[in-house]
Amino acid sequence: MTDAAADPLPLADPLPLAQALIRCPSVTPADEGALDVLQRALEALGFSCRRMPFSAAGTPDVDNLFAVLGEGAPHFCFAGHTDVVPVGDSAAWSRDPFGAEVADGILHGRGAVDMKSAIACFVTAVARLQAAGGPLPGRISLLITGDEEGPAINGTVRMLEQLAAEGLVPDACLVGEPTNPAVLGDMVKIGRRGSMNGVLTAAGTQGHVGYPHLADNPLPRLCRMLLAIAEPELDAGTAHFQKSNLEITSIDVGNPASNVIPAAGTARFNIRFNTEWTPDSLEAWLRARLDEAGGAYELAVTCGAEPFLTAPGDFTAMIVDAVADATGRRPELSTTGGTSDARFISRYCPVAEFGLIGQTMHKVDEQVPVAALHDLTEIYAGLLRRFLGLPGGISAGTAG
Amino acid sequence: MTDAAADPLPLADPLPLAQALIRCPSVTPADEGALDVLQRALEALGFSCRRMPFSAAGTPDVDNLFAVLGEGAPHFCFAGHTDVVPVGDSAAWSRDPFGAEVADGILHGRGAVDMKSAIACFVTAVARLQAAGGPLPGRISLLITGDEEGPAINGTVRMLEQLAAEGLVPDACLVGEPTNPAVLGDMVKIGRRGSMNGVLTAAGTQGHVGYPHLADNPLPRLCRMLLAIAEPELDAGTAHFQKSNLEITSIDVGNPASNVIPAAGTARFNIRFNTEWTPDSLEAWLRARLDEAGGAYELAVTCGAEPFLTAPGDFTAMIVDAVADATGRRPELSTTGGTSDARFISRYCPVAEFGLIGQTMHKVDEQVPVAALHDLTEIYAGLLRRFLGLPGGISAGTAG
Repeated sequence: MTDAAADPLPLADPLPLAQALIRCPSVTPADEGALDVLQRALEALGFSCRRMPFSAAGTPDVDNLFAVLGEGAPHFCFAGHTDVVPVGDSAAWSRDPFGAEVADGILHGRGAVDMKSAIACFVTAVARLQAAGGPLPGRISLLITGDEEGPAINGTVRMLEQLAAEGLVPDACLVGEPTNPAVLGDMVKIGRRGSMNGVLTAAGTQGHVGYPHLADNPLPRLCRMLLAIAEPELDAGTAHFQKSNLEITSIDVGNPASNVIPAAGTARFNIRFNTEWTPDSLEAWLRARLDEAGGAYELAVTCGAEPFLTAPGDFTAMIVDAVADATGRRPELSTTGGTSDARFISRYCPVAEFGLIGQTMHKVDEQVPVAALHDLTEIYAGLLRRFLGLPGGISAGTAG
Repeated sequence: MTDAAADPLPLADPLPLAQALIRCPSVTPADEGALDVLQRALEALGFSCRRMPFSAAGTPDVDNLFAVLGEGAPHFCFAGHTDVVPVGDSAAWSRDPFGAEVADGILHGRGAVDMKSAIACFVTAVARLQAAGGPLPGRISLLITGDEEGPAINGTVRMLEQLAAEGLVPDACLVGEPTNPAVLGDMVKIGRRGSMNGVLTAAGTQGHVGYPHLADNPLPRLCRMLLAIAEPELDAGTAHFQKSNLEITSIDVGNPASNVIPAAGTARFNIRFNTEWTPDSLEAWLRARLDEAGGAYELAVTCGAEPFLTAPGDFTAMIVDAVADATGRRPELSTTGGTSDARFISRYCPVAEFGLIGQTMHKVDEQVPVAALHDLTEIYAGLLRRFLGLPGGISAGTAG
């Protein structure tokens, strides 16, 4: 552990690395040295690091980091991001959002929960295994992007395309997003619903309300079409997913004249859908219902995220066992909530998510108990041991 | 006819008076001398004239003219207005909108149709009866407002209140609004539908589309309520009225966020209703339907006009006969179209409407054939003869 000893960060404890990362104000797409801080820590543990910057027209350039320790199989990957959401009204914060202050056992700052601390915990988990000694029977990698909270175009998606082309797809991946609603150990996310946005326009013929036979009011038809897609149950849910659900989010006509029949009306809706549907089957269902209820319409749909599920099995059992060992709680396997980069990783390998408690993420005064960092380190270390089949630990000598 | 001879306007012909009126740019609420021009012409015929200016908070002051010739019964009233709607884009006009030019037998200008020319025709009709000689067995009056195209608060409504208080309510009234769709003689208006505006708001509970159980989306309920009032037939129409009809004119939510269930949505609608309904019975019907379809809503209705009907009878037969005598056409008795001041007069006495051809009213290049002015004069004179029981005419000597 010569390199690690030379590093100023004591990697047996996740707090100093978490603080160093939080002190880089890496609001998407800025990096502000965050990846450098992480790379130095990983290199101290023997990881081989490579930067994977990507660009695309109309999006900010993004730098990313892929780090590998060991060779061969099994290959376990920890995925995450060093970028954070904006501070918002900084005057509303009790403490400097980028100060990483610890007070009364609480670490404060943007990224404390989502998800710089989880990255630090993962690094410390590896350090802890190395401290226990022994060979590393496989590979541990970190796939870290600076573009998770932004367009998510030049980050995980592009990295995986490149890694797949090089034959570097991992055998399983854990994303360190905050997943616990209230207490560390509540919930592992094993999938997410998909999300589709729709814009439905019904067009008619404008006219005077006194002469309706000379006009064609599109609004009753729009109402009928909206009810035709909003009222039926899309499905009954699955063993692992809630029912799919459609919500009308807006209807807008903007006709200020009380004596004018408007020419058109537009409605917007969002569908959160489970693995019973593909984007194509969902759009086909929508069009069939709309054809039946109205006929004359324009529909534009965009699929923001496809649903995915890592079916409960050996991998998810390892996560549950590691959480139970460290916390005494057997977490629920859930597919609720919003989206994360796990949806991209699911195209390549089994993926699940477990991290800190989400209550303060994206909010003013984002914060985490320091004790939770130690518990999370223990959970990540337990998962690594299980996945790699290690009774004890690994030695630094086998790394790289 | 000493006075008439002293007047520069030759009142045997409606054209000069119509031109003099059009040349006053009396866009509501401006008068620009229009009532003075008319008063001089009427005084030349022996009419007693009084101005009836009215004011009300939040509305422009308006001057009005009530002119009477003769005494006792029967009392026939001609009602109209000297104000006109704005010119709009004056550059789009082929001729000066206030120039009152005659070209190829066509009189051009704002008010040529709606309705300065009809006022001129009525004055000429009286002059023609006077020219025929004989006593006037009753009263002829003109009720002329400068506030028909505006708020319609300080005009006909207030004049009638005052005249009723003085026992001066006429026995019948003809409004000189343009009523003919295509040819002079097409149509007499004997009533109008009422008009009610409604604002319907459905409120719910805002939330995230991913957690619909924590929210209450008001939009499906709004759609259901709108269909509940827009789809049923309100009535089957009557012998003299079209079916009542409701049109949804706008639905507005204004929610830009595709992941947010909105807190409320608002719709607007207009109802054109016949004499099967009162504003109260209509609102009761709406609330019963809305209660059944949704429940949680706010409804605000405003009745812009109540429906009225002058049942076909002696008065309407006189109008039809006068039109048929002058044009060879027996006009349809209709209740179609928008509203006019006739709705106010209907509270006091039988009222019908007959005037010029409406095609260019309120439009660029408003115009009327000069020949139509002569025909309309003949029609008005014929109606006066019938109503007053005059075989021939009346003498100026009996007037005033």
